[in-house]
Amino acid sequence: MRFGRIATPEGMTFAVIDDEGTTAKQIAGTPFTEPEYTGKEWPLEDVRLLAPMLPSKVVAIGRNYADHVAEVFKQSAEHLPPTLFLKPPTSVIGPGAAIKIPEFATKVEFEGELALVVGQPCKNVKAEDWKSVIRGVTIVNDVSSRDLQFADGQWARAKGIDTFCPLGPWIETDLDKFELDNLPIKAHLTHEGTTETKQDSNSNQMIMKFGEIIEFITASMTLLPGDVICTGSPAGTEAMAPGDFIEVEIPGIGKLGNPVERA
Amino acid sequence: MRFGRIATPEGMTFAVIDDEGTTAKQIAGTPFTEPEYTGKEWPLEDVRLLAPMLPSKVVAIGRNYADHVAEVFKQSAEHLPPTLFLKPPTSVIGPGAAIKIPEFATKVEFEGELALVVGQPCKNVKAEDWKSVIRGVTIVNDVSSRDLQFADGQWARAKGIDTFCPLGPWIETDLDKFELDNLPIKAHLTHEGTTETKQDSNSNQMIMKFGEIIEFITASMTLLPGDVICTGSPAGTEAMAPGDFIEVEIPGIGKLGNPVERA
Repeated sequence: MRFGRIATPEGMTFAVIDDEGTTAKQIAGTPFTEPEYTGKEWPLEDVRLLAPMLPSKVVAIGRNYADHVAEVFKQSAEHLPPTLFLKPPTSVIGPGAAIKIPEFATKVEFEGELALVVGQPCKNVKAEDWKSVIRGVTIVNDVSSRDLQFADGQWARAKGIDTFCPLGPWIETDLDKFELDNLPIKAHLTHEGTTETKQDSNSNQMIMKFGEIIEFITASMTLLPGDVICTGSPAGTEAMAPGDFIEVEIPGIGKLGNPVERA
Repeated sequence: MRFGRIATPEGMTFAVIDDEGTTAKQIAGTPFTEPEYTGKEWPLEDVRLLAPMLPSKVVAIGRNYADHVAEVFKQSAEHLPPTLFLKPPTSVIGPGAAIKIPEFATKVEFEGELALVVGQPCKNVKAEDWKSVIRGVTIVNDVSSRDLQFADGQWARAKGIDTFCPLGPWIETDLDKFELDNLPIKAHLTHEGTTETKQDSNSNQMIMKFGEIIEFITASMTLLPGDVICTGSPAGTEAMAPGDFIEVEIPGIGKLGNPVERA
């Protein structure tokens, strides 16, 4: 089932989006429980999809695809193992909202990733139990100013600028509908009218798998409902310019597209 | 004025704490507005002080005291300028609550710091206007596993473990009551019955001053009411062991003391 958060003429609400992506049916509660429909529905084209969740924290795994480690850090993943970082909740935007690049953030690249949305408070989760604490999956674009990332050493600013965390388009809760460990991840960049596929990888390239990620994070941090886990970017990241449009695609889940503007 | 958050037999509430630190007077609202007293009050010893705020984000400045840069990084601050990092909200605890050290977190050190509490949503604040967006100051202990910090490269895990962000005891809103740029910062460690003062510095040693910090952060990130800014640790940090008690003191603001336990 797909849960979205939408802006309608009557206000913001959670909704269930049908598999065809054409209709949004309002629910009374949240994506964390079985849906209770209010009876109201809208054609999806008449509403605006927002980030499907406002997380209390966004925890991300860096250097989780060997090919991406090689392209960004010029080293092998053996010498630079996966690492944790945080993106602030204020960086989250929804599908279609503009990624706004300030003047001082140079070499701003997209990073298309699969994201997990936490379903319940949890700590010390064993790898094999990871699905029991996850409500669903969605798509994230871990936008990163490569120049600030290396100048600062810490990644909080380079990856934490307002609008640098596009999230959506919705939360897919049927984890068994996909082969999660074998899911294509693509990013298509439109620059000066020409669209090229820049990232074209697969979750089977992940170094730390979903269960390991959840065990690793929850050994340290309590996760809360709605928290978002970014599971790492494959190779193919590239700088974006104002005027571009970047779309991350995970077949079966959906597409997350955002225009790029000067802040 | 001092705003605290307290646990009473009747539940949690915000309160104004008198200057002697003996009485907590319940308020109807939050620390963000002028206090409206309900008429209820308690001797402070009959209630429990909690973290004075549950922030949506904790933004911290690393390497903001030259002497601390030298002791931890073995390099001069000229080569390692201040940098931003984030601590997750789940790491926040109040005065008296235990810092719990998991087995894998080794060389866990205290870092006594002055913290700013944001008073209103703000972006692109000029340095000279910083006081207009800050509700008050408090004390933070930026607990850090030095071994994880260097092993991971990114500091999110080393500084983001549950309980690794003691905060309090209250928010002092009278910013002009102190010479903020000339405030002693001390940390007293009690180990096996003996108390020694380990940090004994002054905010006049800060590299990036309060105004610069707020301008630097808000050039990238929107700050929200209740967000906490950790302004950096001076030298003197040292490892703690289960059984220890660590107290950070900023004269005029108060003392933030926490026992240390094995998780």
